[in-house]
This record gives sequence, structure tokens and C-alpha cells, in this order.
Amino acid sequence: MSSDLTTGRLSVYLRCLNYLEQEGVETVSSQELAEKFHLNSAQIRKDLACFGEFGTRGVGYNVNRLKAQLVHTLGIDRKRNVLIVGAGNLGMALADYRGFNSTGFEIVALVDIDPEKAGRASRSGIPVKPYSRLAEVVRENAAEIGVIAVTPESAQEVHDALVAAGVLAILNFAPVQLRTQPRVKVKTVDLRINLESLSFFLKNIEDGTL
Amino acid sequence: MSSDLTTGRLSVYLRCLNYLEQEGVETVSSQELAEKFHLNSAQIRKDLACFGEFGTRGVGYNVNRLKAQLVHTLGIDRKRNVLIVGAGNLGMALADYRGFNSTGFEIVALVDIDPEKAGRASRSGIPVKPYSRLAEVVRENAAEIGVIAVTPESAQEVHDALVAAGVLAILNFAPVQLRTQPRVKVKTVDLRINLESLSFFLKNIEDGTL
Repeated sequence: MSSDLTTGRLSVYLRCLNYLEQEGVETVSSQELAEKFHLNSAQIRKDLACFGEFGTRGVGYNVNRLKAQLVHTLGIDRKRNVLIVGAGNLGMALADYRGFNSTGFEIVALVDIDPEKAGRASRSGIPVKPYSRLAEVVRENAAEIGVIAVTPESAQEVHDALVAAGVLAILNFAPVQLRTQPRVKVKTVDLRINLESLSFFLKNIEDGTL
Repeated sequence: MSSDLTTGRLSVYLRCLNYLEQEGVETVSSQELAEKFHLNSAQIRKDLACFGEFGTRGVGYNVNRLKAQLVHTLGIDRKRNVLIVGAGNLGMALADYRGFNSTGFEIVALVDIDPEKAGRASRSGIPVKPYSRLAEVVRENAAEIGVIAVTPESAQEVHDALVAAGVLAILNFAPVQLRTQPRVKVKTVDLRINLESLSFFLKNIEDGTL
């Protein structure tokens, strides 16, 4: 259950359950989930069975209970503090991104190498602190997740500094492969995949297969 | 073959093949791909068979040929022009994001509602034009993909303007569900999924299951 593809599916199921909950739906079968959200029902049953969720034959899964189980499994039933390194356009955008600063996560600070930026804040009020104080900022704020929003050239150095400060989980937006350590998880965000997915759609229109 | 999860896997396979090509690897089996990149070998065979790629028993897939096939399938063997709406922190960051402005894609312009921003450019030189000229900018640049990097409150209006201008594929960074039309593909980027994946990793450490 450790592959990113699987974890991604758990998040997708959670989004679906949030939606069903808002709609007032109380139970849902794997077939209904699959049809409504264009998923694979066998895959859903297999993924959920890993957490002891088997549903009830002829009834399906209880939406509230399954949602609570997924929230627990993903470890977001408690708050995790996030530090963003790099207060450029991307760092500032992420600091104010609603999905980052909500249930389960809190952006505690940005740090930046530019001394001019220290003392400022993002639009939503996240403070910018000097990069030289990274280790203290991590410790004082009990930051568990570090976000790398710097140039590709600086990303490895920032990774190393975060790991040295005790951060075990890193979200990297720089388009480079980072060397990491066995006990550390680095997830590199590849925004290009989204454009490829749209290109695939346009190609299918062009080919007349859609 | 139209689900986003499947298209995402094709992009993942393409990343793996790019890497293998750089390493000078000429052939690869589905088992090797699966082991090296933590994927599922049965899933790989099934996905690739959809495009008539079956590999050769005992030898595997030809890396160059399979890569060319995936590039073709994803429709990125020709350039697709991209327009970004919103020249705030996020829009500017995306305009200069290396993965966006490379093989298969070209960011042709940003547009922004703020007249003060028109005439400026991103760090890498992508020009900012007035939002009032959106339809002309789409036409003049033959933009096929629109990126929404505005506030959640403005996202639906921007979507509608892009569709009215003839854009069929939209990448939405605003954390809202957009109402769209049958012939249009809207992909909403959910950056939070990446944080959930890291939280899942930290939870497994805490539980001693990693």
C-alpha cells in the first residue's frame, strides 16, 4: 500500500465521499462509486479491503464511516504543520492556496534567502522568515512537512537543510530529481502531467475517438 | 481509456521511459518497469495493450518505440499552445514553470483583468495582455489549452469566456467545481493530494508500519 498511485486513489475516494456526504448520501456501493466518479469497482474493493473495509453485501459502504476511516488512514485526523521554502511567486501562491491551509494541514511560515523578504507576509498573513533561521523555524513551529518552492539549482541544498532540521516529508515543486535518504519521503510535483492529460483529450477529439 | 487515472499512468510510463532512455536502456519488460518504478506489471501490460503494444515475450518492450508510441498517444508529438488567465503569483509561477514550456507545449501569453499588468511580462518573457482581449489572444495565438489561475470567485466566469473563445481543454487551479459543457474537458488540479500522500507516509512511520 505504499505506492503513490495507491495513496492518490485513497485521496480520490475521499474527495468522492466528501461530495456524497454533502449530497446527503448515507451508503454507497463500490459499483455506484465507480460509475459516478469513473473509477474501477474491483480496484475500489481491493484498496478498501486493505483497511478492513468490506462494505455490506447488497448495501455497500457507510459513507460517514468510510470517510472517517480514510481520514484516519491518511493521517489527517490531526493537524500537520507545513513550512514553505522560497517566497517567490510559487511559494506565495502556495501559502495562500486554500487546499493547503485547511483540514489536516497548516502553513506555519515561509522562509526565503532574500533578507528583504523577511518580515513580510503572504496575502493571507503567512509570515516570511530568513532562510538562515530554517532549523529554528522548523523546531519552533513543529513543522513536519517542507515544501520546496525554489529554483532547480537550489532545490538539493534546501532538501538537505530540511532533512538536517529533522523534516521527514518533503513536497518538491522544482523540476529536478532530488537525492534523498532512506527515512525521508520526497514527492516531486509534476504539473506537466495535467497538460498531457488535456493533450490526450484533444488528440482523441482530433482522431474522432471522442 | 478515458479516465484521468489511466491518462496519468501513461504519463508516468513516459517519465520512466525518458529516464531509461537517458540511461541507455534499449529494452524493458513490464516486470522490470514495475520493479524499478514501483508500478503494477499486470496493469502496465493491460494499459499498453490498449495501444497495440504487447512487447516481445522474453525480451520486453523496445524503449524508443514505446516512448514514441506514448508521445503519439498523448498527442504531444506536435506543439499545443497554452494561455494562462491570471497574472498573479500563481499565473506568473506557472508561466515560468519549466515543465509547462517544453516539448509539446508552449505558453503563448498571460491575460489579466488588471490594466496595470498588461504590457508587463513574466521573468522568462511571457507577455501579459488585457483580459478584455481574451478572445483575440486565443485566436491570434491558436491557443488550445486555457489555464485558470484566478480567484475561486472568478473561475467560472473565466471558464465561460475561454469556452466562448473556442478553448476545449482547461486546466483549473482554483479550488472550485466548475460547470462545464459536454465537448469541453476541465481538469481541476488538486495540490492537496500531494500533502495527503506525505501525511500517509508520516502516519505509517508513527504507526511503525514503515
